[in-house]
Amino acid sequence: MKPIKVGLLGIGTVGSGTFNVLKRNQLEITRRAGRSIEIAMVADLNVERARELTNGECEVVNDANLVVSNPDIDIVIELIGGYGIAKDLVMKAIANGKHVVTANKALLATHGNEIFKAAEEKGVMVAFEAAVAGGIPIIKALREGLTANRIQWIAGIINGTTNFILSEMRDKGLDFATVLKQAQELGYAEADPTFDIEGVDAAHKATIMASIAYGIPMQFDKAHVEGITKLQASDIRYAEELGYRIKLLGISKRTEDGIELRVHPTLIPEKRLIANVEGAMNAVLVHGDAVGATLYYGKGAGSEPTASAVIADLVDITRLATADPEHRVPYLAFQSNSLSDLPVLPMAEIVTSYYLRMHVADKPGVLADVTRILADLTISIDAMLQKEPAEGETQTDIIILTHQTKEKNIVAAIEKIEKLDSVFGEVTKLRLEELS
Amino acid sequence: MKPIKVGLLGIGTVGSGTFNVLKRNQLEITRRAGRSIEIAMVADLNVERARELTNGECEVVNDANLVVSNPDIDIVIELIGGYGIAKDLVMKAIANGKHVVTANKALLATHGNEIFKAAEEKGVMVAFEAAVAGGIPIIKALREGLTANRIQWIAGIINGTTNFILSEMRDKGLDFATVLKQAQELGYAEADPTFDIEGVDAAHKATIMASIAYGIPMQFDKAHVEGITKLQASDIRYAEELGYRIKLLGISKRTEDGIELRVHPTLIPEKRLIANVEGAMNAVLVHGDAVGATLYYGKGAGSEPTASAVIADLVDITRLATADPEHRVPYLAFQSNSLSDLPVLPMAEIVTSYYLRMHVADKPGVLADVTRILADLTISIDAMLQKEPAEGETQTDIIILTHQTKEKNIVAAIEKIEKLDSVFGEVTKLRLEELS
Repeated sequence: MKPIKVGLLGIGTVGSGTFNVLKRNQLEITRRAGRSIEIAMVADLNVERARELTNGECEVVNDANLVVSNPDIDIVIELIGGYGIAKDLVMKAIANGKHVVTANKALLATHGNEIFKAAEEKGVMVAFEAAVAGGIPIIKALREGLTANRIQWIAGIINGTTNFILSEMRDKGLDFATVLKQAQELGYAEADPTFDIEGVDAAHKATIMASIAYGIPMQFDKAHVEGITKLQASDIRYAEELGYRIKLLGISKRTEDGIELRVHPTLIPEKRLIANVEGAMNAVLVHGDAVGATLYYGKGAGSEPTASAVIADLVDITRLATADPEHRVPYLAFQSNSLSDLPVLPMAEIVTSYYLRMHVADKPGVLADVTRILADLTISIDAMLQKEPAEGETQTDIIILTHQTKEKNIVAAIEKIEKLDSVFGEVTKLRLEELS
Repeated sequence: MKPIKVGLLGIGTVGSGTFNVLKRNQLEITRRAGRSIEIAMVADLNVERARELTNGECEVVNDANLVVSNPDIDIVIELIGGYGIAKDLVMKAIANGKHVVTANKALLATHGNEIFKAAEEKGVMVAFEAAVAGGIPIIKALREGLTANRIQWIAGIINGTTNFILSEMRDKGLDFATVLKQAQELGYAEADPTFDIEGVDAAHKATIMASIAYGIPMQFDKAHVEGITKLQASDIRYAEELGYRIKLLGISKRTEDGIELRVHPTLIPEKRLIANVEGAMNAVLVHGDAVGATLYYGKGAGSEPTASAVIADLVDITRLATADPEHRVPYLAFQSNSLSDLPVLPMAEIVTSYYLRMHVADKPGVLADVTRILADLTISIDAMLQKEPAEGETQTDIIILTHQTKEKNIVAAIEKIEKLDSVFGEVTKLRLEELS
């Protein structure tokens, strides 16, 4: 059978990884796919470099339009990133009847619904294993491996940069700014790290996973997005004293009223496997009603790990290219005509446990005032830590872990606590998940 | 579209889980599969109980032949177990043009090649996610998620009973026999636990994973199978002192000369996530050349976790039933005409590190004799632990961890060490894997 022809848009880190792995493992991959997979055309603005990377083994152009309109190309891999040009090219490729593989989580989380609709109309596949957690086949697990289950919740360490920073902060007791600078020097954080450290990247990925887990359209605009920039070294230390680690989690949860979809620093019990995922590694915990908790762990970024996911999609498409379009695996795991309109809940309505840190006067009655406020809002306390004031100080920290309550109750409690004369400054609020 | 009709052979623990989950999540599963999946017929020797479990919602028969020959049945689920009747029925179902889903690792590991050949000739699918690691979608990860990779090695905790026993032995410092008895009382071990504790069950699963990871035929007869029955509480304790945990691992490894395929108790560094997989849980670590290490964790047994895997296979088949047979996912991940004849290596040729425990006279020169024997065989030492003799004793234990060497070298060394006058009894040999 003749090779399936692939056009590659963008040959940077992931693109060159894809080219190299396809070449190195060509025999192995063909034995699996039943047909040779060949990158026939590469588009990159830096034509010189693209020619070097591909050793003259395929056509190199600087205009990506030439790839998506080339009638010989069966599959287009989009590795340009962003929402602008990438979207245009993906839509054109689909319009031209090409299957699409993309690692672009930002594009899918924000314009996925439109893209999948266009693809369905043309009867082509859009595959995106590389968009979430790099080389970990988590999309496949959710979309195909766990189809028996009502997925109840997902909690993932899905951004390597922030997990590296949090691991270093804990290991070395350093503050956020210091570690960020080191991470940038080591290449673990980009020059402009905003998307990572503010949680946007993790929210794109959590949005995609929620969509295929619960069968809802992509709704990135409804996600709660909170990064790690305000996290104090002291919070990491206090959490540890209480038996918890702090991780930036992408969380989604099915409740009777709707779907929780949120990214924020989260305390999790140190005994959980996922609490021990260190450095730039990724891990996703998925809880289904039949299977219970399952965990998927691996490298979430990098040239070849991400290429591993891109190529898995190529093999899938090659294997399934002959299936009736309506009997292929649906883009969002659920058939497009049976997506759910279960709403994404506003943050005020989510239910979780909380870590509260407050700076207070070291005198009688403070704790009574604080606990009274919590009790009045029916928030019960799970654990408490009161630090001795430092030598000569008259102020100290109180840390409280609550049982589950609605976010709006905690917000109301904090507003009242901050008005107490004996409480100084803002109350720090972090969310806590038992993940059991 | 009319429902896809399923016939269920055997409604025990997994069968009733499958029936219940399919019913409970019917809506969710249909939304995913695009078509209703209906258990239309159940065969079980205990007809009365089967009728009760299925609430009169489907036909119940006591003769499984009536199911596999029923022209209305599209997919047969085989949950009988064993090699005898189960094999006959699977072959008949295939001959009658039915797709087959099975959780039967023993059957596949020993007769898989014959079954897959028959299925290919008839153009039907045989799916077996439930045969390895229960609800963890590890077959899908290996067969589809990691297709870009040359898989280099797999190491899995794939038998919950033995992992439960080892966890208890370590936690409570108890010996094997005591914990086995407790495990039987708690229902974690069967009345006849031979297949579990002797490593046979893990070897069936390791055989299946090796086959789809490296593209080789099933070769259970070539697997090295070693259980945990001889493990001493002292070995677990010494391993811990040296920073290791002992787990029963199913290991396969690709080398230039062939495939290593072995099940045995294994020391692994306590820092690895997989070393912290406790109780009856399962976890599989897969190392691919592009993706690096990935880990898959979850429940490896039980009614609904295993049903989760069975139903995922049903959904896969339902989605793909219309694909050209030659473009479906191949049974063994690789196309059947391109399996490799890479041999499974005899144990003498495997390469790994070792833990040696020997009981010796507490006098000068013993260690010199032992280390000389190792050096002569070019076995280098990584770590050593020499215990003080107990009060009034003149004998003591020496524990040696070696660097990597061929098994035949260690066997030769042990033979010489056991002949030393100052060494008493047999030398205990355990294998050690860094899994890095």
